[in-house]
Amino acid sequence: MELWFREAHTPNVKLSIRVDKQLYSGQSEFQRIDVFDSQEFGRFLTLDGYMMLTEKDEFIYHEMMVHIPMAVHPNVKDVLVIGGGDGGVVRELCRYPEIEHIDLVEIDPQVVEVCRRYLPFTTCSLDDPRVSIHYEDGLRYVRTPVEQYDLIIVDSTDPFGPGEGLFTREFYGNCSKALRADGIMVNQHESPFYQEDAVACQRAHKRIVESFPLAKVYQAHIPTYPSGHWLFGFASKKYHPLRDLDEVRWNARKLSCKYYTTMLHKGAFYIPAYVEELLKNVESAD
Amino acid sequence: MELWFREAHTPNVKLSIRVDKQLYSGQSEFQRIDVFDSQEFGRFLTLDGYMMLTEKDEFIYHEMMVHIPMAVHPNVKDVLVIGGGDGGVVRELCRYPEIEHIDLVEIDPQVVEVCRRYLPFTTCSLDDPRVSIHYEDGLRYVRTPVEQYDLIIVDSTDPFGPGEGLFTREFYGNCSKALRADGIMVNQHESPFYQEDAVACQRAHKRIVESFPLAKVYQAHIPTYPSGHWLFGFASKKYHPLRDLDEVRWNARKLSCKYYTTMLHKGAFYIPAYVEELLKNVESAD
Repeated sequence: MELWFREAHTPNVKLSIRVDKQLYSGQSEFQRIDVFDSQEFGRFLTLDGYMMLTEKDEFIYHEMMVHIPMAVHPNVKDVLVIGGGDGGVVRELCRYPEIEHIDLVEIDPQVVEVCRRYLPFTTCSLDDPRVSIHYEDGLRYVRTPVEQYDLIIVDSTDPFGPGEGLFTREFYGNCSKALRADGIMVNQHESPFYQEDAVACQRAHKRIVESFPLAKVYQAHIPTYPSGHWLFGFASKKYHPLRDLDEVRWNARKLSCKYYTTMLHKGAFYIPAYVEELLKNVESAD
Repeated sequence: MELWFREAHTPNVKLSIRVDKQLYSGQSEFQRIDVFDSQEFGRFLTLDGYMMLTEKDEFIYHEMMVHIPMAVHPNVKDVLVIGGGDGGVVRELCRYPEIEHIDLVEIDPQVVEVCRRYLPFTTCSLDDPRVSIHYEDGLRYVRTPVEQYDLIIVDSTDPFGPGEGLFTREFYGNCSKALRADGIMVNQHESPFYQEDAVACQRAHKRIVESFPLAKVYQAHIPTYPSGHWLFGFASKKYHPLRDLDEVRWNARKLSCKYYTTMLHKGAFYIPAYVEELLKNVESAD
């Protein structure tokens, strides 16, 4: 028997992954949730048929979301994670002893339940005593806090469906308000390669630029995401992602990573000419 | 009607591209050659069913093969290109007026013929008076020249089939001999991501390290190649790819590129921790 998971990256491009077994399939209030086992990527999670993470390459996404801002901000105590019910971002954050509190705001309790059951490699720190899980819409949650966080990580799905609100001007403005005066916001920022993704990417960047004095994007190779070329946003009230990178301090922590290094940190911000061009008209001066 | 080109990146992963029309299909003495038109990637060329280049993303591969060494070596006059019958590497080389001669060694005349007919966007400089085309096996060709080239670019297919000899110790040793005392060799170096590719990548690196005093790899995002994370080898007798990068000189040329920038040049060498690990045991000290 052959069983293949297939995702349309555009109407004209598909990535197919051979599946050993479908472990879970359910419909929550918000989305369809599936978990598969595969030879090539190990266990993987999809939401509404879109690849969220695989056991083989999730380290790339989660390390790049967390260690980039943590190597720049000198004193992170309070962190807000929006989305990220799989726990991967929280797992990486919990490696930092100076972090005192993490609020994880996930709209869909069923995602957390399913991940706890099937993806222990990402949920392993969700029971850390510093973590509070709030089952709430992130867009709504960020309306309340004022100067409460040092770091906000927006681990959203794509800019349609349940994740749509997390790409709006209102949301980014409230994130800015919820951050302290030297706070950083990092977000998953789509891909610059395929036309439709590039437009989403440009629009998100424009809105972030309007809400933060400094907004850059950085990149990583994520083989299971469309085109494999993925961007993240780095928005900041004070710290520059390269000028304020403290390589000595971060390396002294002796955290072992599979993707992130402080050298790679720098390279991640050296984006291709066509991506610079794509974002140029909306990018903040620095 | 639906027509899809599908390539197995591993036995368990496939990338599919919707095709408008198959423009050419032929069997040469060496390989099967196909040309397609597609909505998403424009025109594309496959050899034995493996993606070689697409109109949409070929700029990434060709710019990274050429501008990286050209921004490092201060005085390139004679260049040898092995493989690359599509002309993309030659096109980028011909943008440098100081280059006096380019020997293009392609084993398969039919590749050049087909590309001249269907891919004018890559073959456009093959008639430059500085270019000599030799229809010969690259492995054999490099046995003869001694200290004749400043730069060798190995634009090979994968390490099986017609391209197999271009990943051997004998070949790299002869490339070293064919280069002048400050020569540079750049080669397509496979991907580090999928297990089988990673092994090929490690083996190639080991052999290059044995033939050159300095051997590094650098990376690019190439969406139509397996995993999208592609490596290139930079092997050198004298120049270091970062310490000898002359940003001011290269930027003064005012060459317009879509992928390459001198900032990206640096970032391309800042590879992920797992790739460093993969190559560490065989990497040259520097």
